[in-house]
Amino acid sequence: MEKDKRHKLKILTDSEAIELWVDEEHTIYEQLLRNGIAVENLCGGKGICGKCSIRTLYGSFSQPTESEERWIKILGRDARLSCQVKALSDSVIKIDRMQEKSEAKILSWGVRKAIKPKPRVIVKETKLSPVVACGGKGCLEILLELSGSKNYDPQIIPLISHIFSEGKNVIGVISYDGEIIDIVRDKSQYELLGAAVDIGTTTVVVSVCDLKTGRVVGLDSAYNQQIRFGEDVISRVDYARRDKRNIDELKNAIINTINELISRIVDKNNLDSNSIYEVVCSGNTTMLSFLLGDDFYYSSRAPFIPPFTSSLKVRARDLGIKINPRGYVRTVPSISAYVGSDIVADILASGLHEFGGVAVLIDIGTNGEIVLKTRTGEFLATSCAAGPALEGYGLRHGMRAVKGAIESVVIDEYGTSYYRVIGNARPIGVCGSGVVEAIAWMWLRNIIDDTGRIVKKTDKLISMSLDEPQYIIVPAEQSAHSQEITITQTDIRKVQLAKAAIFAALMTLLRVAKTSIEEIERIYVAGAFGNYLDIFAAQVLGMLPDIARDKFVFVGNGSLIGAETILLSSDTEEQVKEIVGKTKVIELNLIKDFQKEFIQATHIPHQDKKLFRNVIFEATPFKQYS
Amino acid sequence: MEKDKRHKLKILTDSEAIELWVDEEHTIYEQLLRNGIAVENLCGGKGICGKCSIRTLYGSFSQPTESEERWIKILGRDARLSCQVKALSDSVIKIDRMQEKSEAKILSWGVRKAIKPKPRVIVKETKLSPVVACGGKGCLEILLELSGSKNYDPQIIPLISHIFSEGKNVIGVISYDGEIIDIVRDKSQYELLGAAVDIGTTTVVVSVCDLKTGRVVGLDSAYNQQIRFGEDVISRVDYARRDKRNIDELKNAIINTINELISRIVDKNNLDSNSIYEVVCSGNTTMLSFLLGDDFYYSSRAPFIPPFTSSLKVRARDLGIKINPRGYVRTVPSISAYVGSDIVADILASGLHEFGGVAVLIDIGTNGEIVLKTRTGEFLATSCAAGPALEGYGLRHGMRAVKGAIESVVIDEYGTSYYRVIGNARPIGVCGSGVVEAIAWMWLRNIIDDTGRIVKKTDKLISMSLDEPQYIIVPAEQSAHSQEITITQTDIRKVQLAKAAIFAALMTLLRVAKTSIEEIERIYVAGAFGNYLDIFAAQVLGMLPDIARDKFVFVGNGSLIGAETILLSSDTEEQVKEIVGKTKVIELNLIKDFQKEFIQATHIPHQDKKLFRNVIFEATPFKQYS
Repeated sequence: MEKDKRHKLKILTDSEAIELWVDEEHTIYEQLLRNGIAVENLCGGKGICGKCSIRTLYGSFSQPTESEERWIKILGRDARLSCQVKALSDSVIKIDRMQEKSEAKILSWGVRKAIKPKPRVIVKETKLSPVVACGGKGCLEILLELSGSKNYDPQIIPLISHIFSEGKNVIGVISYDGEIIDIVRDKSQYELLGAAVDIGTTTVVVSVCDLKTGRVVGLDSAYNQQIRFGEDVISRVDYARRDKRNIDELKNAIINTINELISRIVDKNNLDSNSIYEVVCSGNTTMLSFLLGDDFYYSSRAPFIPPFTSSLKVRARDLGIKINPRGYVRTVPSISAYVGSDIVADILASGLHEFGGVAVLIDIGTNGEIVLKTRTGEFLATSCAAGPALEGYGLRHGMRAVKGAIESVVIDEYGTSYYRVIGNARPIGVCGSGVVEAIAWMWLRNIIDDTGRIVKKTDKLISMSLDEPQYIIVPAEQSAHSQEITITQTDIRKVQLAKAAIFAALMTLLRVAKTSIEEIERIYVAGAFGNYLDIFAAQVLGMLPDIARDKFVFVGNGSLIGAETILLSSDTEEQVKEIVGKTKVIELNLIKDFQKEFIQATHIPHQDKKLFRNVIFEATPFKQYS
Repeated sequence: MEKDKRHKLKILTDSEAIELWVDEEHTIYEQLLRNGIAVENLCGGKGICGKCSIRTLYGSFSQPTESEERWIKILGRDARLSCQVKALSDSVIKIDRMQEKSEAKILSWGVRKAIKPKPRVIVKETKLSPVVACGGKGCLEILLELSGSKNYDPQIIPLISHIFSEGKNVIGVISYDGEIIDIVRDKSQYELLGAAVDIGTTTVVVSVCDLKTGRVVGLDSAYNQQIRFGEDVISRVDYARRDKRNIDELKNAIINTINELISRIVDKNNLDSNSIYEVVCSGNTTMLSFLLGDDFYYSSRAPFIPPFTSSLKVRARDLGIKINPRGYVRTVPSISAYVGSDIVADILASGLHEFGGVAVLIDIGTNGEIVLKTRTGEFLATSCAAGPALEGYGLRHGMRAVKGAIESVVIDEYGTSYYRVIGNARPIGVCGSGVVEAIAWMWLRNIIDDTGRIVKKTDKLISMSLDEPQYIIVPAEQSAHSQEITITQTDIRKVQLAKAAIFAALMTLLRVAKTSIEEIERIYVAGAFGNYLDIFAAQVLGMLPDIARDKFVFVGNGSLIGAETILLSSDTEEQVKEIVGKTKVIELNLIKDFQKEFIQATHIPHQDKKLFRNVIFEATPFKQYS
């Protein structure tokens, strides 16, 4: 290793190639950082977290360090940790994870394919002049004739005479599925916006899109205000049933949540809410039922018939959604009382329906939703109650994936945690992806045992709180609120139940379809934290199955992206129909041994260790704690 | 004339024949009264008012008295006054006017022809059981399939699952033009009601009808709450233009008026407002524009294009009309900015479109509306600003035709008035028909001259008030409020302007169509007081033309009846289209000499006395005042 010897390092990214001169003395990580290229990392270059991994495409490099050896097993033969490796010749590399800078990282986007927008809302320039009194026709009838329309919302009437009165020559006639819903004076008002909404049981995400370009122009998320009436679907249905007014409360809570999000996006991006003409809502069947004012009581009992499954079209003002009052709210079609429109949107967003082999879609949320595409091309779908823990709700220091949330955690062999906080702020709490990683690392470092019990009670990083042990991720002096941020024994139990529900549901579907884990060619991971979930950590926890990590594809918030896709293109209608037609619902409660499957899956990673032999093998080198 | 000699008197009514024994000593009026048959009369049997007239069909009678001679000229050769005539043989008579007992007499009904109801709203019994979960269908989709419907209001969704939940076997599915708008549990809820609304500039009348039988089940009227923003259409348009909020005020005022009337009818008749599924509104173009939130400003200027003319269909909840929120409000189609849907309704109600010869329709209201059916079958239509005086608004003691209103007046040769009060109450004020009769009799008794000026200023029945003379109809001690009820000089001026506008408009239409008064074969009189208007008095005043009184047909409130007809039968649609297509609008302002015509018509009965020679001849015997 010669000092001062310099090599050319070429870094390939998705969009460009960057070249640097690097020496043999410093790690590639240090030299990237010095050149302003921020690579993801938690541990500060100690080889612990594995986040700064790169792929070596060409050239010769230093020998792998001990910590690298562990990670190469996990990351693959071409992987190195940039904080450990040095370039010894001219080289070409790819960086696995660039450091992201966004302030709010809740999973609100994803891998939406390029769509040629074909929205239901269009603007048509219409020549007005000269307007003359013609026998028996009013402004409305003249406009209908000039624009070649037959249908209109009567609320446009006052707009027409005003525009006629101003003597405009050319106006913009805005119609939805051929019905005139607005008339605008100037080209500057030709803006056509739409909103996609993912109504999660715990989290609601709204994106506002430009219907002409397909671009997302604003995006925000919030907890569903219905949470105050119950954390899960069942307790909300109970609440709705108790009093007629309660169903209004639930309805208003979700409508307020959506309106606040739209209002925030509109304000932040300097938009006009009157230019939003359509909202497409995706969510589980209960959420959509509450939105429409149904209490879901009838649907929650056998024969489990939901209030509706088709795509409803409701006038925005009828729901009280504050967009253009003449616009529409539409729902994505659902499949059953427990397999909702969010799954349909997930399938559409992921492309599962277009994938040729056996594949699985897992949407991780308060309701976990699993779809198995079988060898015969059928979709077997089910949902399971995972609870809100994976969305950061209901944990001692849980929070949404917004600024101040710890979204990634590793723990070194001394029990010290390294973490990344969204927005580079001081930490306030832990969001779902952070909790998954924290618990996985607690197991890897033997802080908890296979049953999830905290075993290292005497350690300085374990304290007692409210009669239960907790692991301290952030000491009081480092947090934003000068209090410890911890993972409690109860938190761990909640996450165990959540991950067990998801894994058991997947195993049950596979069993129904007589398919083994090994046959799965691809797993699409969707949900409120899909993009930030560390697959290795999720496998260590036993939430995701033990198959090659390159078979996992992140969909992001599939429910939202599917809604966006439907919003932007009326051409998707056929695909959606096909998806709905092909999907068969599996009721877990009716499947023998689901409960047994579930109980086994509460272990970390699983009571049946053979199911996770690769992960356990990869994990072994980490399982030391001094 | 033999005392105690008794004859058989047969009285024919529309529905039956009654036989009495009468003597030769007492008048027929006295003997009818003694037998409980109440004949209309104002003067108490003094031969002054002419209201107790009968037709002699058979038998011999006493010689006509002097006062009878005068009335026979007016009423026809077969007419006698029952308070004067005695039967001298067995006889057969018909009574012109039975005494009516209704409490509120505002013209809210009329001569609606029997209609076989064919409403747009229907209820269909649908068998539900057994409901089973069927692939992918929700309650909504199951209901649509069972009822064979495709369209529905999304607001029915919560109703469906509730009804499914109750396990009903048979339900009632209520649809409007094929769209499901309600679902009801029991046969008792199968009631289908609709409301017809006449939105007058001054008075609003609502009738609620049973859509299955066609029967009017309740009816009420009130002043249009918009009056506080201006008495006539033009001042309200000015008000609307001044501020955006003003148009909302006008809109809310009319909606509140309609809602209060519906609520009163519903309460009084023990109805359920949720069973009202449709409201059909008729009114002049400005009123309907305000209802839909248009300020009519553009339409009030050349080229006078109204906001709309077609029949609009608006969801009740969108307008805030408090019927079933899933029901609809529809407008009767209009013809132009100044020939509104009320005229279309009038024509439909009167049957003018089915009459074979030259005929005229006169709708007397704040806007007077005149239609001339020409020899070629075309309708020439126009409207004129008459002001609210004929609806009792804006006169010193004016009031609507409700309990306590003087609706009929005669004045004897000593200047004493005889009057009838609606509801047999103590008088509170004078309504439109009372004012017309009062002023006609003031002229007949030479209290006013041909120019309308009060000339008998020294008389005890004439007093001065606020620097102007007034005629005392009711002395303070006889009225309900212990104050005089009078007709002031200003009141007379207002009525003169109103009647001149109507007559001049009629004359102008005749001139345009090159038709003389003599050619008119029938005159349909519609409007807020149509049924109670004394034709003779209206002719004396010069409001209605001087043609044989048997050519007049009372339509009643044509605007309301037309709306009822459209409400009850979807079959009328074709007739309405034909009426709209055949109607040509005449703009009075564009017709030469209309102003001249108007000024001449302000005289009583007219400056051109030849136009009223019959009436003047008949009137001469009354023109004495001592």
